[in-house]
Amino acid sequence: MINKLCDKIKKTNAPIVVGLDPMLSYVPDHIKAAAFAEYGETLKGAAEAIWQYNKGIIDATYDLIPAVKPQIAMYEQFGIEGMIAFQKTVEYCQEKDLVVIGDIKRGDIGSTSAAYATGHIGKVQVGSNTYTAFNEDFITVNPYLGSDGITPFLDVCKEEKKGMFILVKTSNPSSGEFQDRLIDGKPLYEHVAEKVAAWGEEHMGDSYSYVGAVVGATYPEIGKVLRKVMPKSFILVPGYGAQGGKGADLVHYFNEDGLGAIVNSSRGIIAAYKQDKYAQYGAANYADASRAAVLDMIADIDGALKAAK
Amino acid sequence: MINKLCDKIKKTNAPIVVGLDPMLSYVPDHIKAAAFAEYGETLKGAAEAIWQYNKGIIDATYDLIPAVKPQIAMYEQFGIEGMIAFQKTVEYCQEKDLVVIGDIKRGDIGSTSAAYATGHIGKVQVGSNTYTAFNEDFITVNPYLGSDGITPFLDVCKEEKKGMFILVKTSNPSSGEFQDRLIDGKPLYEHVAEKVAAWGEEHMGDSYSYVGAVVGATYPEIGKVLRKVMPKSFILVPGYGAQGGKGADLVHYFNEDGLGAIVNSSRGIIAAYKQDKYAQYGAANYADASRAAVLDMIADIDGALKAAK
Repeated sequence: MINKLCDKIKKTNAPIVVGLDPMLSYVPDHIKAAAFAEYGETLKGAAEAIWQYNKGIIDATYDLIPAVKPQIAMYEQFGIEGMIAFQKTVEYCQEKDLVVIGDIKRGDIGSTSAAYATGHIGKVQVGSNTYTAFNEDFITVNPYLGSDGITPFLDVCKEEKKGMFILVKTSNPSSGEFQDRLIDGKPLYEHVAEKVAAWGEEHMGDSYSYVGAVVGATYPEIGKVLRKVMPKSFILVPGYGAQGGKGADLVHYFNEDGLGAIVNSSRGIIAAYKQDKYAQYGAANYADASRAAVLDMIADIDGALKAAK
Repeated sequence: MINKLCDKIKKTNAPIVVGLDPMLSYVPDHIKAAAFAEYGETLKGAAEAIWQYNKGIIDATYDLIPAVKPQIAMYEQFGIEGMIAFQKTVEYCQEKDLVVIGDIKRGDIGSTSAAYATGHIGKVQVGSNTYTAFNEDFITVNPYLGSDGITPFLDVCKEEKKGMFILVKTSNPSSGEFQDRLIDGKPLYEHVAEKVAAWGEEHMGDSYSYVGAVVGATYPEIGKVLRKVMPKSFILVPGYGAQGGKGADLVHYFNEDGLGAIVNSSRGIIAAYKQDKYAQYGAANYADASRAAVLDMIADIDGALKAAK
């Protein structure tokens, strides 16, 4: 799956991922009206609205991008119906040959991490049958519990040729509260990054590891350091766009081969029609606004990478 | 909800919580056979089996205990059908007047934590209607992202008079890998505990805070220190029984009022019939074995607390 991600990035020349993090407030009124007409103002109606909204964005952008990253919390808030919309979104993206990164940030003690791994990237046994549950291609994982919270995910990644991105330095303002604290002269995030590099060596693709890291776009100097600590790990970079990150800030997250990083934008793309810049599309053509925002993001990052050469 | 938890602990004299972490391998054959006869060897069949298994344990123990802690990963591994079994379990426990601690270990950047809080302890708005999704009473939360990953949970806790337990020192063998590392002379878990105490002051019940902490039974010396760092926080203590913790190890997790800690046992209770000690019950009477194991656990902890006085 990491090889597929590399291939698709080269083919699209787009080291980006579209964050499918739908809020009901982003969904254009005509989509909500149709969903509510069918299912009422219910959890099922809300789930139908976000699914139709996602589908529009995917149809308008899938040929330009290698991957999507649905944030499961945005679906989980609508309960079972929301989880069904999450599952439909994952399946539909895979039909469109997109790599799906489930942004689930799970992590627990061994046997529990094993259950999460089974549910999200593995297979579950029921009697003599085997099923997949949520079936993403990559997932995000929280490292706070240490190695024995990570290895069950690693085991399933090996079995299924799937991958994960481990939180190293997150994009939010207070991420430094614990992550930046110095331990033996080095910040905690650097210790975590060293472990990511070590775990990654256990499960290598052709040029990159199946074990990547999350490093926020909002901390470019840290990204520069961590690129070197984890040379074979892909860096998943949240925080571009709405959170403040720009293409020029991100060149050091990449290796010299032009790979090694994949930059996420969520709101900046899926709710592009709400920005002044793309307002001319209007709510009716929200998906075209998303396509325009994807093209602009690709150009921004490509320009920055070329300028840095 | 923290007041209710305190009241129920006093009434039952049982500072314990039963971890509803069902594995299909724990479920007695007669329950699996009935579920598979109805739904086949499918995800729905598996979910029905774990729900019926849970129901038997709840019916046999609810009068003895204040609270249950379903581990969502064990349900999530069966996909949507598993999540429905989780939801049914939460609802059924609440009908039995049990406090439900959803062991979900979520945690993300602000807007995403807000969505998790909405889905698990809050209410979600759809048009002019308001719904609950998973509707637990307490949840567990991961602190790696710092304050702005926690405050959205805190906000919803305040609104709904619900609570959370934040991971401080987990029970697993490699928890020390990051959590024990020294920062300014103190381990990371102690820095997290200080923040838990500060967050907890913002949302107090009558004697204890709505913000508690997770500290594993497997590290009793650390429990003793952390009890003092967070005097007003309830400590949720995993790792009793199957993971090795004993009642005598846990006396220092409690305050002098006999409150302040709630000890979890999962496998040791729900799969008690598989232990030599309770083998005489047999698989047919697995729930009676669970009841006997609950009574033994209460006696073990009560004895240890009395001996320490």
